[in-house]
Amino acid sequence: MDTKILLPEDRIPKQWYNIIPDMPGPLAPVIHPGTLQPVTPDDLLPLFPIGLIEQEVSPNRWIDIPDEVRDIYRLWRPSPLFRAHRLEKALGTPAKIYYKYEGGSPAGSHKPNTAIPQAYYNKIAGTKRIASETGAGQWGSSIALACQMFGLECTVYMVKVSFNQKPYRKSMMQLWGAEVIASPSDRTNAGRAILAEHPDSNGSLGIAISEAVEDAATREDTRYALGSVLNHVCLHQTIIGLEAKEQLAIAGDYPDVVIGCHGGGSNFAGIGFPFVADKANGKNIRIVAMEPTSCPTLTKGVYEFDYGDTAKMAPISKMYTLGHDFMPPGIHAGGLRYHGASPLVSQLVHAGVVEALAVPQNACFEAAVLFSKSEGIIPAPESSHAIRGAIDEALKAKEEGKERVILFNLSGHGHVDMTAYDAYFSGKLEDYEYPEEAIKESLTHLPKVSF
Amino acid sequence: MDTKILLPEDRIPKQWYNIIPDMPGPLAPVIHPGTLQPVTPDDLLPLFPIGLIEQEVSPNRWIDIPDEVRDIYRLWRPSPLFRAHRLEKALGTPAKIYYKYEGGSPAGSHKPNTAIPQAYYNKIAGTKRIASETGAGQWGSSIALACQMFGLECTVYMVKVSFNQKPYRKSMMQLWGAEVIASPSDRTNAGRAILAEHPDSNGSLGIAISEAVEDAATREDTRYALGSVLNHVCLHQTIIGLEAKEQLAIAGDYPDVVIGCHGGGSNFAGIGFPFVADKANGKNIRIVAMEPTSCPTLTKGVYEFDYGDTAKMAPISKMYTLGHDFMPPGIHAGGLRYHGASPLVSQLVHAGVVEALAVPQNACFEAAVLFSKSEGIIPAPESSHAIRGAIDEALKAKEEGKERVILFNLSGHGHVDMTAYDAYFSGKLEDYEYPEEAIKESLTHLPKVSF
Repeated sequence: MDTKILLPEDRIPKQWYNIIPDMPGPLAPVIHPGTLQPVTPDDLLPLFPIGLIEQEVSPNRWIDIPDEVRDIYRLWRPSPLFRAHRLEKALGTPAKIYYKYEGGSPAGSHKPNTAIPQAYYNKIAGTKRIASETGAGQWGSSIALACQMFGLECTVYMVKVSFNQKPYRKSMMQLWGAEVIASPSDRTNAGRAILAEHPDSNGSLGIAISEAVEDAATREDTRYALGSVLNHVCLHQTIIGLEAKEQLAIAGDYPDVVIGCHGGGSNFAGIGFPFVADKANGKNIRIVAMEPTSCPTLTKGVYEFDYGDTAKMAPISKMYTLGHDFMPPGIHAGGLRYHGASPLVSQLVHAGVVEALAVPQNACFEAAVLFSKSEGIIPAPESSHAIRGAIDEALKAKEEGKERVILFNLSGHGHVDMTAYDAYFSGKLEDYEYPEEAIKESLTHLPKVSF
Repeated sequence: MDTKILLPEDRIPKQWYNIIPDMPGPLAPVIHPGTLQPVTPDDLLPLFPIGLIEQEVSPNRWIDIPDEVRDIYRLWRPSPLFRAHRLEKALGTPAKIYYKYEGGSPAGSHKPNTAIPQAYYNKIAGTKRIASETGAGQWGSSIALACQMFGLECTVYMVKVSFNQKPYRKSMMQLWGAEVIASPSDRTNAGRAILAEHPDSNGSLGIAISEAVEDAATREDTRYALGSVLNHVCLHQTIIGLEAKEQLAIAGDYPDVVIGCHGGGSNFAGIGFPFVADKANGKNIRIVAMEPTSCPTLTKGVYEFDYGDTAKMAPISKMYTLGHDFMPPGIHAGGLRYHGASPLVSQLVHAGVVEALAVPQNACFEAAVLFSKSEGIIPAPESSHAIRGAIDEALKAKEEGKERVILFNLSGHGHVDMTAYDAYFSGKLEDYEYPEEAIKESLTHLPKVSF
């Protein structure tokens, strides 16, 4: 029995799967933060190229992947699907565990799956430069790589605390030709306003988004790029699940449960959405989003309209939210620290199609260590949440004495996150209590919108 | 035209290629550092299990790979062979450039190819614990992984300056269950002697080797493991070149030139030795070892008997050497800072079968950056030497207007070496002059041996 199921390059999917026509009901409108009225595609043109705006609202179930994008995907796609024989044995479970591994991309995560097409649609629309933001740097390094591949300039506003403390991903961005600015910066009104009030500000993802959006909105040659949350980002990531389905078919299996970690929603959508389609067609399958207890958007948030950013400059979406000014504790899975969630994932959770579970970080690192000792690969802290979910499912199967096919997405490697493992081993990781009071307070600040 | 040539798992080679019967002449004996007489297999039993000692001197051209080893190889092997379409285009060369990518292993380099069989042969010989040393940590992390897979304890003596300055690979070793000791340590006589004289010693690979050898030699349950130089290490790495040959055949190509970087010789042997066999059979092919000008063992050293370590505790081999007490400047390609070389590679260079070239580090980083911007993958600083060689060959082909097929080994990724790239971009990398005086001095200390 093989350990990996590989596909040749000509089996890289030719189309992405767009879940919009298969959603349980119409999408809520996206609201302009200034007018509090639904945005039109025209409102978005200063920020996004037309190709991506069309995808954001497309009613077509299948959307062609341009050859230029598939050609770059070839550098690491199709990604391997692994059968976790050694982990199964370590757990003594009758379950079959499969994982799709996205850490083999040049940036080490799934993020280039959407960075590449985003750069492509900008390139053909005449964009010369992309402005974006990044927290720990997974997304920033991916958009830098993508801009390099299409000859676009790239400026990344990087949250200052990460800029200073996580130099490796900053260096990757610079290697791929991007300009990296510590945020808050004096380059934007948003940044200068923060610095005037808090000269020593460490920054936040919300502030960095505001800076990148302002940069793009105020320069004719520049557009904005976001690495998660939006519909077109989820669309591009479905290549993960589409490949996994084909690989599982080769193995003669179909999952009983599909698991992804959840921050903004992109890697979860990537592995999960192609299976949501099957569920809508009557398949008996569970699809589970794993999030951190310290930032429990899907499990403890409300399903309401809220701003995408702290500074209230980004569009308002109907989604699960902890409130746009909720500041999650500083866990190591930086990519999962977002107050909101993909509107598509949110609607699926609200409709009961997708389950959500929250797990504390020590339990996730425990799972990641067991995984590494069995399978070798060292997971990113974000991905460890999916591993925790998969292991718990496998242990349940063992308890019940039942076979079960489990599929999870291993969204990235952890080679540049080893300080997080050090903290775990030294017993210095806190399992934050569910921050009930902070969330309650933050939820009183939601915008007054009803559509 | 595909970007990657993949092989299914059942095409993982079933045998390693042993170059010993195809060498141009008999091997020089290995000399005992105490008696100055040739070592016998019995002399090596306190350090190595019998399976590896047999491989060290085997006259058989093909040696079976145990199923237990192939099963673990499946986690990342066969490794992909890439055609560097984008790099070729960036260079405007008529040459075809192929690279074998070994950075997809759990440890991020080619080192697990030998760590896994070394742990296996120890396991079946009843070894309970392995002691080894590491500089920057590529080898240490790989032997830790391998011991984890076979349930062996593992202690790694890590050069103190790296222990303090390169925490990421130390953390990987700990994650895979190894005990990591900063060397010099108070655990061994060798370490205590150094500390008594130099309490603030930063350590060196030579000292760390002495500590690990002493640890293994003085404990019945413990054996020693080395990540390069030795014949059995080169043997295990030939899986790289064997796979590459099969993949090139699928592409319908055969290389005019094969290139690997060279430190102790293991990754070079891996890509090169299977082609040396063809050359011996009349194929017109060049095989080139790339080394740093700061540690120019093959190009500026002498082909003489010398100690494998600084402390003169390791066996004496006939090899190219800069002298066992030569201390190379602190370049970023830590894996290439070794005073000696694999005796097998040395003999091939001496016989004119293999060419050697030395390149300065700035030129290597320049090549690595061009490579990353074209192909995505960020190379380890060691591997950048092979890239420099490949690019120079491709540029020569362009100048001459000739097609040429170039194959090189991309032995590891550079995600944990980004500080080296930072130093390059900030103009802080020195191109060390060839350290002629230091080498001349060191070469006066060779042992008096002639066989």
